[in-house]
Amino acid sequence: VEARGIHHVGVAVVDLDEAVRTYERLFGGRLEHRARVDAQGVEAASIRVGDDRIELLAALGDDTPVGKFLAKRGPGMHHVAYEVDDVRAAAADLAAGGAELIDSEPRQGMFGLEVAFVHPESVHGVLSEVVSSG
Amino acid sequence: VEARGIHHVGVAVVDLDEAVRTYERLFGGRLEHRARVDAQGVEAASIRVGDDRIELLAALGDDTPVGKFLAKRGPGMHHVAYEVDDVRAAAADLAAGGAELIDSEPRQGMFGLEVAFVHPESVHGVLSEVVSSG
Repeated sequence: VEARGIHHVGVAVVDLDEAVRTYERLFGGRLEHRARVDAQGVEAASIRVGDDRIELLAALGDDTPVGKFLAKRGPGMHHVAYEVDDVRAAAADLAAGGAELIDSEPRQGMFGLEVAFVHPESVHGVLSEVVSSG
Repeated sequence: VEARGIHHVGVAVVDLDEAVRTYERLFGGRLEHRARVDAQGVEAASIRVGDDRIELLAALGDDTPVGKFLAKRGPGMHHVAYEVDDVRAAAADLAAGGAELIDSEPRQGMFGLEVAFVHPESVHGVLSEVVSSG
């Protein structure tokens, strides 16, 4: 995949309101979107820093993926998302390159984005995502 | 601090050669710099992905900061670096904003950059860096 760049860095947090304020105060972040996504068990906030983005993720319950991550590792960096032209083509390329995909089919992510996740075992411990804004 | 954007995402790895190849193969990354920095106990490679960067960090020994991180958490995401105009002014702003700095004075980072680190406790578990290319 020829990624266009890093679309966002995903960060798991306990208190979303407080985390948004921290990124605003410390790094001049600006809240771009905020949404509760029950299907994924998260409430998420996209923070712009310059042309880049931090995606803050708070768990809606302990038994969600982000809830389990928080219980195991505590708050912190969760994933890196790469912007691609076409998520379906990117997922096929990644599989052909030997990567294990969590989503073999693109799925609807947050904020209207199309996404697919790559298993961290395939990227030296980094949960990685390809994303297209359409 | 009004950060200009994300300068790089730092990732701790076990095998630097293999990790560079993985980012080239999976995401179209291009090796920008590579250097061994004995003072910091790392060998580092800066990978461009579009206009963005992944900074891969391999430990030169178990008793280095990255070596201890790898022993405790395994390979994975290590820090987020924000580009600022002036690291000294940014560090003063961050301290005034209540952040605990690891480096109260800017120091020489890798690849000729001036850097200061912010304690993860001040940023919801994310080790954060401010960096200036000069």
